[in-house]
Amino acid sequence: MDSSNNAHKLNDLTMSEKVRPLLDAVKQHIRDNVDPILEEYNRLGEGRAERFSYAPGQLDLLEGAKKKAKEAGLWNFFLPNAETGEGLSNLDYAYIAVELGKNPLASETLNCSAPDTGNMEVLERVGTPEQKEQWLKPLLNGEIRSCFGMTEPQVASSDARNIETSAVLEGDEWVINGEKYYISGAGDPRCKIMICMVKTSPDAEPFRQQSQILVPMDAPGLTILGPMNVFGHDDAPHGHMHIKLDNVRVPKDNILWGEGRGFEISQLRLGPGRIHHCMRSIGSAEKALGLMIDRGLNREAFGRSIIDLGKNMETISRARIEIEAMRMIVLKAAKAMDVLGNKEARIWVSMAKAMVPEKCCNIIDQAIQIHGATGISQWSPLPEMYTKQRTLRLADGPDEVHHNVVARAEVKSHN
Amino acid sequence: MDSSNNAHKLNDLTMSEKVRPLLDAVKQHIRDNVDPILEEYNRLGEGRAERFSYAPGQLDLLEGAKKKAKEAGLWNFFLPNAETGEGLSNLDYAYIAVELGKNPLASETLNCSAPDTGNMEVLERVGTPEQKEQWLKPLLNGEIRSCFGMTEPQVASSDARNIETSAVLEGDEWVINGEKYYISGAGDPRCKIMICMVKTSPDAEPFRQQSQILVPMDAPGLTILGPMNVFGHDDAPHGHMHIKLDNVRVPKDNILWGEGRGFEISQLRLGPGRIHHCMRSIGSAEKALGLMIDRGLNREAFGRSIIDLGKNMETISRARIEIEAMRMIVLKAAKAMDVLGNKEARIWVSMAKAMVPEKCCNIIDQAIQIHGATGISQWSPLPEMYTKQRTLRLADGPDEVHHNVVARAEVKSHN
Amino acid sequence: MDSSNNAHKLNDLTMSEKVRPLLDAVKQHIRDNVDPILEEYNRLGEGRAERFSYAPGQLDLLEGAKKKAKEAGLWNFFLPNAETGEGLSNLDYAYIAVELGKNPLASETLNCSAPDTGNMEVLERVGTPEQKEQWLKPLLNGEIRSCFGMTEPQVASSDARNIETSAVLEGDEWVINGEKYYISGAGDPRCKIMICMVKTSPDAEPFRQQSQILVPMDAPGLTILGPMNVFGHDDAPHGHMHIKLDNVRVPKDNILWGEGRGFEISQLRLGPGRIHHCMRSIGSAEKALGLMIDRGLNREAFGRSIIDLGKNMETISRARIEIEAMRMIVLKAAKAMDVLGNKEARIWVSMAKAMVPEKCCNIIDQAIQIHGATGISQWSPLPEMYTKQRTLRLADGPDEVHHNVVARAEVKSHN
Amino acid sequence: MDSSNNAHKLNDLTMSEKVRPLLDAVKQHIRDNVDPILEEYNRLGEGRAERFSYAPGQLDLLEGAKKKAKEAGLWNFFLPNAETGEGLSNLDYAYIAVELGKNPLASETLNCSAPDTGNMEVLERVGTPEQKEQWLKPLLNGEIRSCFGMTEPQVASSDARNIETSAVLEGDEWVINGEKYYISGAGDPRCKIMICMVKTSPDAEPFRQQSQILVPMDAPGLTILGPMNVFGHDDAPHGHMHIKLDNVRVPKDNILWGEGRGFEISQLRLGPGRIHHCMRSIGSAEKALGLMIDRGLNREAFGRSIIDLGKNMETISRARIEIEAMRMIVLKAAKAMDVLGNKEARIWVSMAKAMVPEKCCNIIDQAIQIHGATGISQWSPLPEMYTKQRTLRLADGPDEVHHNVVARAEVKSHN
Repeated sequence: MDSSNNAHKLNDLTMSEKVRPLLDAVKQHIRDNVDPILEEYNRLGEGRAERFSYAPGQLDLLEGAKKKAKEAGLWNFFLPNAETGEGLSNLDYAYIAVELGKNPLASETLNCSAPDTGNMEVLERVGTPEQKEQWLKPLLNGEIRSCFGMTEPQVASSDARNIETSAVLEGDEWVINGEKYYISGAGDPRCKIMICMVKTSPDAEPFRQQSQILVPMDAPGLTILGPMNVFGHDDAPHGHMHIKLDNVRVPKDNILWGEGRGFEISQLRLGPGRIHHCMRSIGSAEKALGLMIDRGLNREAFGRSIIDLGKNMETISRARIEIEAMRMIVLKAAKAMDVLGNKEARIWVSMAKAMVPEKCCNIIDQAIQIHGATGISQWSPLPEMYTKQRTLRLADGPDEVHHNVVARAEVKSHN
Repeated sequence: MDSSNNAHKLNDLTMSEKVRPLLDAVKQHIRDNVDPILEEYNRLGEGRAERFSYAPGQLDLLEGAKKKAKEAGLWNFFLPNAETGEGLSNLDYAYIAVELGKNPLASETLNCSAPDTGNMEVLERVGTPEQKEQWLKPLLNGEIRSCFGMTEPQVASSDARNIETSAVLEGDEWVINGEKYYISGAGDPRCKIMICMVKTSPDAEPFRQQSQILVPMDAPGLTILGPMNVFGHDDAPHGHMHIKLDNVRVPKDNILWGEGRGFEISQLRLGPGRIHHCMRSIGSAEKALGLMIDRGLNREAFGRSIIDLGKNMETISRARIEIEAMRMIVLKAAKAMDVLGNKEARIWVSMAKAMVPEKCCNIIDQAIQIHGATGISQWSPLPEMYTKQRTLRLADGPDEVHHNVVARAEVKSHN
Repeated sequence: MDSSNNAHKLNDLTMSEKVRPLLDAVKQHIRDNVDPILEEYNRLGEGRAERFSYAPGQLDLLEGAKKKAKEAGLWNFFLPNAETGEGLSNLDYAYIAVELGKNPLASETLNCSAPDTGNMEVLERVGTPEQKEQWLKPLLNGEIRSCFGMTEPQVASSDARNIETSAVLEGDEWVINGEKYYISGAGDPRCKIMICMVKTSPDAEPFRQQSQILVPMDAPGLTILGPMNVFGHDDAPHGHMHIKLDNVRVPKDNILWGEGRGFEISQLRLGPGRIHHCMRSIGSAEKALGLMIDRGLNREAFGRSIIDLGKNMETISRARIEIEAMRMIVLKAAKAMDVLGNKEARIWVSMAKAMVPEKCCNIIDQAIQIHGATGISQWSPLPEMYTKQRTLRLADGPDEVHHNVVARAEVKSHN
Repeated sequence: MDSSNNAHKLNDLTMSEKVRPLLDAVKQHIRDNVDPILEEYNRLGEGRAERFSYAPGQLDLLEGAKKKAKEAGLWNFFLPNAETGEGLSNLDYAYIAVELGKNPLASETLNCSAPDTGNMEVLERVGTPEQKEQWLKPLLNGEIRSCFGMTEPQVASSDARNIETSAVLEGDEWVINGEKYYISGAGDPRCKIMICMVKTSPDAEPFRQQSQILVPMDAPGLTILGPMNVFGHDDAPHGHMHIKLDNVRVPKDNILWGEGRGFEISQLRLGPGRIHHCMRSIGSAEKALGLMIDRGLNREAFGRSIIDLGKNMETISRARIEIEAMRMIVLKAAKAMDVLGNKEARIWVSMAKAMVPEKCCNIIDQAIQIHGATGISQWSPLPEMYTKQRTLRLADGPDEVHHNVVARAEVKSHN
């Protein structure tokens, strides 16, 4: 897998000329329209008893910023090669996503939030005209939100063959039974549709047993049992919900791309989804490094600035080096998707996914340490940044699965 | 600091004969009286709007278990060499504290909770008869709780000389002004007294400027501004509170041990306090290792038990080795306090404090990883165990301060 | 495997009263008789063309020191519970071995060198009177040396079932064919006997196929093909030799303990052997830490002593903490052998073996880094110390095998 | 230092079109002309009593390969923007240097060996016509070799102001006195010239006190005291020599670029020099990874290929990820030198230098572990590869100095 062989294809990681002004516009949009609303948005949402709802005025702030972004043409960048004409190359989008990672509201204002991005990409790629009209259009317009039902509480979902939720065709309807958890975004009252991974064909070969089906969130029999927490957070109102599907019935045509193609769709969606997360993670690590330096410069102990104590300067250097290394690997994985296609690029994607969240956890953890008790408090964004990166080491395939992908490819290419 | 020189004093780490039956009794008490109430206790406390209060019935559960422990003579073990006749040697207590670390309610049922233990030890050692009568007695009886006011939000408290809260003598009263945060236990409605570190003598030499003063929680001018969170948790009803002291007046006699002795008292209290935490941390790491193995044995992926995948077996071995290593260092630090006194033992205490929470964080983090998404959820005790250990890397002196203590002693002994 | 259950048996790690004066005597012997000859011994041995021989005068230095030790009763300490009446408990010997680890000649002056110690223990435990008379006696007297033939170049010897060297009984003789490498000590002209692991019973069950046989080094057909290097060193004149056995014939009675008991003997010998190495490793780490501090205090750069730059103080603290942790684990493993017997103690031994050389490598490596170029040069003992510890991570079972022993025991005890 | 600002300048890391065929030619040259001679070259050089000399026939092998490379135009690639018309951009050369790192003779056959490359670059940049005629010309022709005299045994040379070797102008001659060590390449009988860092102006400001002077190796008063070892190797006949300068007299005109410009020249030379090493290091890590996989596939233990045991697959994945990350950082540093100039690029160079050798040490060490005892033996190239990378962590500035450069730039850019 020595990259020298395809270096001429993958090593030009320059942003395209056309995107440079867009990146500047995104930065300005965040500075002008997103950074200023974050504090009030958070304050309004604080301590609400009805957790999975928005406070009066909260969505107005968000919609205001969305409107400005949309008017400025800063919209749906995530969707490469779309028929809709929107979307940037994965490489160009990577540069933008790093910026989006620095403010937790930024992505949504550009309609570039997970898991909608992955869902929209799937619908755009394999949806029927009717499916697109009903679900893709309002998603692309930022009118509704969506979720993706993959993980199940009873099995190790890292091996997707373990999925147990069943869908059985009865007449013109799929009847779905099962349990899903950590369904991110399902708590949002605007979430209207779930793309649900189900087992439709238990007698087919292992990787042809699954399908993906569109399940409206208001379908009878679909119950949100409650939120799954992340280190004690319920992440309301977004939420990572625990959902029960009890004889949920959806029309036969709600299947995506055909029976038994669930895995193929997953391969399609997970590449970009993982990379988008990693791109934003780098923005998060940049922010942690900045906070580390700020704190180190502005506190004194034992007669010196904290930054000059012990190993702190070396910690800063190592963080910078690792950030630059991660940046290049993520850019390269994005380029690989552009040049080689999502399937061929999957080893690069797994390299990025196995590398980035783990290193970001370490960098944020070190930033916490320099902050003392404030670093674990609500006065700092660091605890939430940490738990988000820690979660990413488990989501979309745990680190171990991605290391295994990389290692097997390495061994294979070696022979 | 080659321990061979004093090995004959410190290397007998055997539990005393008299404590062996006590340890068995403590284990049985936890099994019979504490483990069975934990779930209901937690359920009752869940999602309360008035955060820093107890639900009806919650305290009854706790008091029931306390009563049983007290009747069985399992009470106040933490207090070595006490005039009161209670208390075990630090070494013996270490064995018991490891067990207490496995259930979050266990310590309190034996009246061995932080920060009361440290406060009681201080009162027992340096309190006047009147101070003992008023505060130590109800604390030893488990009738009230207490807190310790050290850390301040505006300065790097790791260098205790930075403390800014001032106490000025006006007539027969100390007038106290300042701000404290992360005051653990101050949220509990039963918390009646704070031992507060203040600056009384700004013109004295650096380590004689501070004093410790008893401040009743209901003193006019003492306001709890709110809870400080730990990775998003408010840890209610215990709480880590942010407190303002605005012209708080307390009697002159509320000072402990005399003006300018604040540091001396800190040295006294922090040794045992740190070691108690580390002892419980080892219990926590044991529990994490057990959970790791359970999960690894009971889930399958890619055709094998998870425990047999990748590096999981080596992770288990490394965890066991590190736990045994930590155990011995903590036992040795406890023994050092018994044999050499808290002052001479402080290097061993710093070794334990710098070593244990960091390694426990790693072990718990690995347990989380094996659990997948469940490992970060409310279905698992692991997230709370993690944030507790992570907090310990900052509390009672961050790792860096303890490494510095150890290194300076090492260099000094080398010459 | 929570040690609390057997803590009352294993946690008294005190040196016995009778050994305290012996330890002092050993320290004084090293100071008076070994440290002073090391430089000349090394100088005499330098750059010899005939590698596996001693220079005139070199052995005289060594024999002089041996004589003094023997006269002072500092002899054969390694052999616990020996009929010969010599030998200390494993725990007591551990304290002495730490000291031996600080000077590379010290062990031999007390007749406590590997691999003789293991060979003598085996002979003492399972040898026939004739075998003892012929080989154990001169070994215990320090008149000859010996080696142990286990590892083979063509197979992964970490799985001992892979051993391919065969011994076939023809009449009254075993006929041995095969190849061994890294046979430590076989280069020494004084080495007269090899205990050789061979396959005698290919049809028996896997762990009963092997036997151990005494093979005189001058047996016809035994050829030393040359030395195996360790990071480029040939470690002459001791040497780690590559040996060919080509129809080597030895008397039938040269078998130890009986056919098919090769593994049983290995279990017996490897426990103490591994622990002796680990004990000496700790002495080596102590020495590295001392050198680190010396260098750090005595060099300046950028206006400060090197010791005060960057993370050096934390490195020192971490080294001290790890050394103390290793010391306790090794002492505990030694105690376990004394109390539980070598078989039951093997998990503790594996814990020590998996822990110690890896951590010692790190500590020595950090000492090298602080020394700059001198740290990798012949002016410093550190490179040789490093390669010795690095070798130990592979010898007597690589780290991975020991982690596997520990993990399997952990999982088993968990159920 | 967020690279997004200058990403448009530095992120095109594509090899130039003109170099692609050269890279192919280099690979073929190594395959056809260098790989086949390595074993015989090494065999001829083995065990020579006269260490710093070549065996009959040894140089013929080398000169044969040099001749073929030169005829094929594969020569002096290292020298960017040279008046001589040779040389590639740093970026293009990086791709080639990775290949050179896989065979220890490859660099020299292309006249791209350290330290000649750095010396030639300095002479080309700042040499007088006379200096170029006398020394640069034969160096560029591969007729002589050279060394660089920087490090001194008595001071911490990581702070270059510490240099103590003095040069005093007496009439038309510099009189030089001092001691240098680890002067790489000075053992080679073909080494004719040293560029020597000396203190000429002790009263100037700290960074203007030093100069660099050309000292012929046969100058009276220059004595090679002996070789400095690297983990016991003398690395003959190349050697890292210990040199005494005792009233060595050289003509006044032997100074380079003028008095007090020693540091400026160092800045100039060290950038490319460090990067060339890092490039080759990546080739070395690639080779280690390949060996790791080979061994893992071809040995069995406990019923499975070693590669499938424990954490080995994850080790392989992590190695691949780190290699790709290192590759990109090194390419980026090379590009930075091309685009920003050596001075501006120095932070990128320090990032690469602080990152690469440390990570390569780890990868090679893991390859050793998988090999078992063979991994530390003369049968494997791994021990020599390890010690070379370990040495690089100290040479041309230890890791700590480079981390400090990176951290200070980071903090500065942050304000």
